[in-house]
Amino acid sequence: MIEKIAEPLEDLIIELMKLPSVGPKSAQRLAFHFANTDKKDIDKLCHALIGIKEKLFKCSICGNFSESKICKICSDKSRINDIICVVGDFRDLIAIEKSHAYKGKYHILGGLISPSDGIGPENLNIKSLEDRIENEKVQELIIATNPNVNGETTALYLAKIMSKYKIKMTRIAYGLPVGYNLEYADDITISRAIIGRREI
Amino acid sequence: MIEKIAEPLEDLIIELMKLPSVGPKSAQRLAFHFANTDKKDIDKLCHALIGIKEKLFKCSICGNFSESKICKICSDKSRINDIICVVGDFRDLIAIEKSHAYKGKYHILGGLISPSDGIGPENLNIKSLEDRIENEKVQELIIATNPNVNGETTALYLAKIMSKYKIKMTRIAYGLPVGYNLEYADDITISRAIIGRREI
Repeated sequence: MIEKIAEPLEDLIIELMKLPSVGPKSAQRLAFHFANTDKKDIDKLCHALIGIKEKLFKCSICGNFSESKICKICSDKSRINDIICVVGDFRDLIAIEKSHAYKGKYHILGGLISPSDGIGPENLNIKSLEDRIENEKVQELIIATNPNVNGETTALYLAKIMSKYKIKMTRIAYGLPVGYNLEYADDITISRAIIGRREI
Repeated sequence: MIEKIAEPLEDLIIELMKLPSVGPKSAQRLAFHFANTDKKDIDKLCHALIGIKEKLFKCSICGNFSESKICKICSDKSRINDIICVVGDFRDLIAIEKSHAYKGKYHILGGLISPSDGIGPENLNIKSLEDRIENEKVQELIIATNPNVNGETTALYLAKIMSKYKIKMTRIAYGLPVGYNLEYADDITISRAIIGRREI
């Protein structure tokens, strides 16, 4: 930081630089934005920020963020009870919910196995998933971890340890994204799309 | 927004999406970050945000952000008094200060002339600049508005209306950025670099 900058601005820039993907330039741009924003809007943002610390909890069943002990999805009687879709974090859940393609329940691992980050199976919500399989009448487990190295490692690990339960285990399909262009797809995606081909 | 998301999180995502260059995905990512951040750090950020509304003012001389009536630069006796560097906003001032190449005073226009955004000379702090030229013993005005269409328009406008004062007027130099590669430079920059060539 440079010494000639007003202290309240500098304090804010320092705090903003702690955010993910916010470097010095973005922090300055944001601070400049806030300096020109109505106090009312700043208050609303602060209220929302404090709100997630005071009113946001983790669902005791699936680990999703929730404003009550049990989240909206777990307490929704209209959802299919015996299928659990396992995801890495809540953003994956949102992505799947937005597709409107799934009506079962979820289980949030709270991360993916990542040896380079020191995250092993013991750091994930796997024990609670096993408890659910034992206590709820689960018929199918859909492993919807990300299609990358960590997601794949986690899926393989889950497949292995869950094999002792007599339930159907599935993995979300690999293939070409809809609206995509074959020309630009990478080799691995194309080979997965061919392996996963379905009759029409 | 989707209906199954916890309200405190949704409220925060809505507020975050009001920030410049923050779309739904970035807002989600930030909200997720805040949900996993210590309350202490959230309080610090909120404190800094409220601070810029309660403790940040505009310098009555140059228009720079300041925690007092007159900013650190205007009240700094060690700085050269008779040169004023005119910039669009405070981020330009920070950029110049960081270079340590300038030891005079500043004047912040609070924007640039931009007909497409409905910003004309009457919306900028030009009257206060004229007052300074009349009252302070200004020798030189460096027009350091951005090297783009709006910055150039503003520079030309200032050059025209300030011509009635008997002061030296300069424009920051155009040319190739240091460490840059001629091969990648655009034609206009190269032609400006040739026109602005200096004896070695």
